[in-house]
Amino acid sequence: MSEVLLRDIIERLGGELIGDPETRIESIEPLESATPTAISFLANPVYAKQLAGSSAACVIVAPAFRDAAAARGAAIVSADPYLYFARLTQWWAERTRPPVPAAIHPSAAIDQAARIGARVAVGAFAVIEAGAIVGDDVRIGPHAVVGAGCRIGTATRIGPRVAVVAGTTIGARGIVHAGAVLGADGFGFAPDRGRWEKIEQLGRVVIGDDVEIGANTCIDRGALGDTVIGDGVKIDNLVQIGHNVRIGAHTAIAGCVGIAGSATIGAHCMLGGGSGVNGHVTIADHVVVGGATQISRSIAKAGFYSGSFPFDDNASWEKNAATLRNLHALRERVRALEKKSP
Amino acid sequence: MSEVLLRDIIERLGGELIGDPETRIESIEPLESATPTAISFLANPVYAKQLAGSSAACVIVAPAFRDAAAARGAAIVSADPYLYFARLTQWWAERTRPPVPAAIHPSAAIDQAARIGARVAVGAFAVIEAGAIVGDDVRIGPHAVVGAGCRIGTATRIGPRVAVVAGTTIGARGIVHAGAVLGADGFGFAPDRGRWEKIEQLGRVVIGDDVEIGANTCIDRGALGDTVIGDGVKIDNLVQIGHNVRIGAHTAIAGCVGIAGSATIGAHCMLGGGSGVNGHVTIADHVVVGGATQISRSIAKAGFYSGSFPFDDNASWEKNAATLRNLHALRERVRALEKKSP
Amino acid sequence: MSEVLLRDIIERLGGELIGDPETRIESIEPLESATPTAISFLANPVYAKQLAGSSAACVIVAPAFRDAAAARGAAIVSADPYLYFARLTQWWAERTRPPVPAAIHPSAAIDQAARIGARVAVGAFAVIEAGAIVGDDVRIGPHAVVGAGCRIGTATRIGPRVAVVAGTTIGARGIVHAGAVLGADGFGFAPDRGRWEKIEQLGRVVIGDDVEIGANTCIDRGALGDTVIGDGVKIDNLVQIGHNVRIGAHTAIAGCVGIAGSATIGAHCMLGGGSGVNGHVTIADHVVVGGATQISRSIAKAGFYSGSFPFDDNASWEKNAATLRNLHALRERVRALEKKSP
Repeated sequence: MSEVLLRDIIERLGGELIGDPETRIESIEPLESATPTAISFLANPVYAKQLAGSSAACVIVAPAFRDAAAARGAAIVSADPYLYFARLTQWWAERTRPPVPAAIHPSAAIDQAARIGARVAVGAFAVIEAGAIVGDDVRIGPHAVVGAGCRIGTATRIGPRVAVVAGTTIGARGIVHAGAVLGADGFGFAPDRGRWEKIEQLGRVVIGDDVEIGANTCIDRGALGDTVIGDGVKIDNLVQIGHNVRIGAHTAIAGCVGIAGSATIGAHCMLGGGSGVNGHVTIADHVVVGGATQISRSIAKAGFYSGSFPFDDNASWEKNAATLRNLHALRERVRALEKKSP
Repeated sequence: MSEVLLRDIIERLGGELIGDPETRIESIEPLESATPTAISFLANPVYAKQLAGSSAACVIVAPAFRDAAAARGAAIVSADPYLYFARLTQWWAERTRPPVPAAIHPSAAIDQAARIGARVAVGAFAVIEAGAIVGDDVRIGPHAVVGAGCRIGTATRIGPRVAVVAGTTIGARGIVHAGAVLGADGFGFAPDRGRWEKIEQLGRVVIGDDVEIGANTCIDRGALGDTVIGDGVKIDNLVQIGHNVRIGAHTAIAGCVGIAGSATIGAHCMLGGGSGVNGHVTIADHVVVGGATQISRSIAKAGFYSGSFPFDDNASWEKNAATLRNLHALRERVRALEKKSP
Repeated sequence: MSEVLLRDIIERLGGELIGDPETRIESIEPLESATPTAISFLANPVYAKQLAGSSAACVIVAPAFRDAAAARGAAIVSADPYLYFARLTQWWAERTRPPVPAAIHPSAAIDQAARIGARVAVGAFAVIEAGAIVGDDVRIGPHAVVGAGCRIGTATRIGPRVAVVAGTTIGARGIVHAGAVLGADGFGFAPDRGRWEKIEQLGRVVIGDDVEIGANTCIDRGALGDTVIGDGVKIDNLVQIGHNVRIGAHTAIAGCVGIAGSATIGAHCMLGGGSGVNGHVTIADHVVVGGATQISRSIAKAGFYSGSFPFDDNASWEKNAATLRNLHALRERVRALEKKSP
């Protein structure tokens, strides 16, 4: 059952409880739509006005909202309500999801020359090739393929039908979602009289600890050296990471981002959804890139960078876009006027 | 054999026939390149000038083109030639494609605690986990994974190596193409002193009836509540739909679209290829978004919205793009000139 | 072992050797970071200043750099150092990668009505359906699905869990990376009183010789005619190619590109990462499209075309983007000033 008492939550996660510790909690719900047996949270002061009207049994709040929360019912006061909420979801998942038994499905094809750690779960039809080393407590989903010589670190979870191509290394406590491809060839060709000659991709993919990789995301192996993903990096779905890219620790990359070959992204960066990074570009630590922004040159300084074209109703956009195609000429006309102007 | 008589088509799909009902039709082809045993259609008046020159045995036309069509050969007159054509392709596919036998491949791994309806086809190496409920007449392709507790509605077709992750619900008569991932984790983390703490994604994906989902498309499970795709929604390939997105009925989404978390899209919308929608944005019913347009704020009113940057030859683009970076300053200069101007 | 002598390289690949043919080479490395037992190359004169300081045992250079290279150690002089390097990587891969035995994994499900050539390798759990024709020396990865009636040409390599859907044809010497989907339905529907009626996709995907297709890329089958990919085309990861697209020979398409239905791309084109092509657009031969550029109308002339919006720090971008929304009005104001100006 997924029911707990507020007392259980406080015992597990700390925080100061205002209200009856015997209150029963049956779900975690957003503040606005919470039902009377739910626990909710107020992380962003923008939503403070929803607090009074919420039907939640208990709300997790920052100290500044202690009184407002107490005025409406039970509350848990925490210095960082969003982090508290994150940890609560983790505990909730642990309690409510059926445990994956540490068993090897009889249909899995595990090469005799692979090394499998203790308490490893391997799903139906998974393939583990020769020379692969799978750490303790790893979970490998159905239909996943772990290629020759790959290493999967302790307690990492490989989702259903992930392809980990030969030679790829993944650290500990990682999560790789369904359909991701780690270690396919980078895109490299030399022109030869109008044809393309393949540059074999001789490097690897090396992924740090605590990395999460989204569904159907692709990370290419290096051409000569390796493609390197730092510790704690979080990557969303359908992201393309080219060969020899290097991503610094704890950087977060939203969905549909494309990072071209040999780009270097700093640590603690955030790349918005649909953004892109040109090849060979270098981005400093702590850079935030807005959604749908193409980073076409290096960024040496931490900060927030944007560049998506503003949308509009189609008629206005057409007029502005047409003018835009002559923008340089418009500037010249302004210059001419300025010269004439006394 | 894929050969039919015009008589057969009319009997099956209706419409008024002009010409010999015994005419043999061997294929469906575009007007411009149709061969003499093909049936074709004229749906867009823009192509009317191709009518007279077409070699097609028969052309499906609207009443306005009855005479022009009759002047060149056989014709089927229908109020909506494009819809007639669509139904003809359906009948054609039914007649010409080998039927998928309602058989369970012996290699499929179906948990004893899964419930499988009548006349279900399951392909080689497909996995159906405990608690899954698969409706009557469902077809599950080779290598597809239907996770614990998923529900697949009547007559839905799951393509090869689709991943339907635990808890996902799909309605009736759906089509999911190869490689799609339904129900992987949404992208949610709380910052904690420079690291990211995972917010477990506790919601589900709930998909209505008559939904088509393209190859390698990803739809994430909700963080707390569910991600909801309405009835009749059509989604193309390589589309990313974030957690807690809601998409209204009969909306069509072209390839490479990214919809960030908690966005709400109305019913009967159309999103062009490569467009994007920011998180938490709301879009009204009957909104059409042009290709490559980033919807960065809510749209309250039906209409056609665009916003892709006009391309140009590289030299012109460079000059315009450079000017663009000082556009605000240019406006200030115009203002200054206006002030001076008598 | 991956060690060779310079003598071996010259014997295999030609070129003029300066220095000791007995020099041992243990790796191929970039010029800048090469170790003393590595061979490197100087392909782009921009990096010429790295030559003198490189620790590489040997550097592949163009004739113009013969003296500079000889001044620092061994060198191989070749008219095209980048092409020489490409061929060296191919030989290196051949020598160092474990050969894939031409064996059919016992778990593979091969229909009796499929025709399999000589020396074919088929991985674990691969599925080859009835009527498929697989040429000599083909390698099919684990979990790949080759649908009914598909043809795979001589020596083509199909990666792990690729889906080749019924009726698709692939030429000789191709490479298809993990997760690609070839031949799923194109996106076609006829509107019917607010609902979408499916247009069954009756065409195929036809792929030429020497084509490489990236991980998780999708190529849709044609609606009526076929989707056609010419000889020697190279396609990166996560690319979407719609129904009835035609791509000319030796065109290269970088990651995250989307090409909408019925677009025609010429031969010897290059499409930059994240670019897009509208439906029904025609692009001439030898067109180069910059990254993140949306090709919204046909291009009749070879050349370099760009159109990505310049990014900036967020404050500057906001000011410019706001001005941009009134750009047309600004032009009118300049016109008014010009009229007044004597």
